[in-house]
Amino acid sequence: MIAHTPEPPYTAVIFTSLRRKESGDYEAVARRMLALAEGQPGYLGAESVRDAEGWGITVSYWRDEACARAWGAVAEHREAQRMGRESFYACYALRVATVARQDGHGASL
Amino acid sequence: MIAHTPEPPYTAVIFTSLRRKESGDYEAVARRMLALAEGQPGYLGAESVRDAEGWGITVSYWRDEACARAWGAVAEHREAQRMGRESFYACYALRVATVARQDGHGASL
Repeated sequence: MIAHTPEPPYTAVIFTSLRRKESGDYEAVARRMLALAEGQPGYLGAESVRDAEGWGITVSYWRDEACARAWGAVAEHREAQRMGRESFYACYALRVATVARQDGHGASL
Repeated sequence: MIAHTPEPPYTAVIFTSLRRKESGDYEAVARRMLALAEGQPGYLGAESVRDAEGWGITVSYWRDEACARAWGAVAEHREAQRMGRESFYACYALRVATVARQDGHGASL
């Protein structure tokens, strides 16, 4: 599950969220979004963890910020974002960052 | 638990790991490292999630890369890193990034 990212620089989108207990279509939408992201230009991989309380951090990696921004603007993704705000998440933070260096242990980056 | 970060730019350290099942002092060391980080110059906050399988993502936020690097070089933290490699984690990835933009919903960044 550790993403096999290339030599920096590349872009990381850090999404931290608290999922609501009743969030209906969440699982199906989340799976669909991951599949859709994988087909986008510049997608490099993603890492995602959610705990039993509903807190989650997903980091997706992109060739550059333009690719990350383009993914954010995809119509079906925009609709999922709207569902996220309105029903899936109690709160979230989204941060877009440029990775400058990376290191790993027991994982091939 | 969403970190109250300032206006970008600032530095994010993304640590993705798989914890071993038997990892002895892990909880105590992790708590101590969080407390120690909070007292470091330039510490802005952190977000951390670990799931039932042992996968975790912790993102710590710093005023700049020099502050993040200084934290990485603190002697007690170096010792914890050694324990991490030798016993706590089956694998991990560490990425240092500069946050360029952020957005939130239901959370004050």
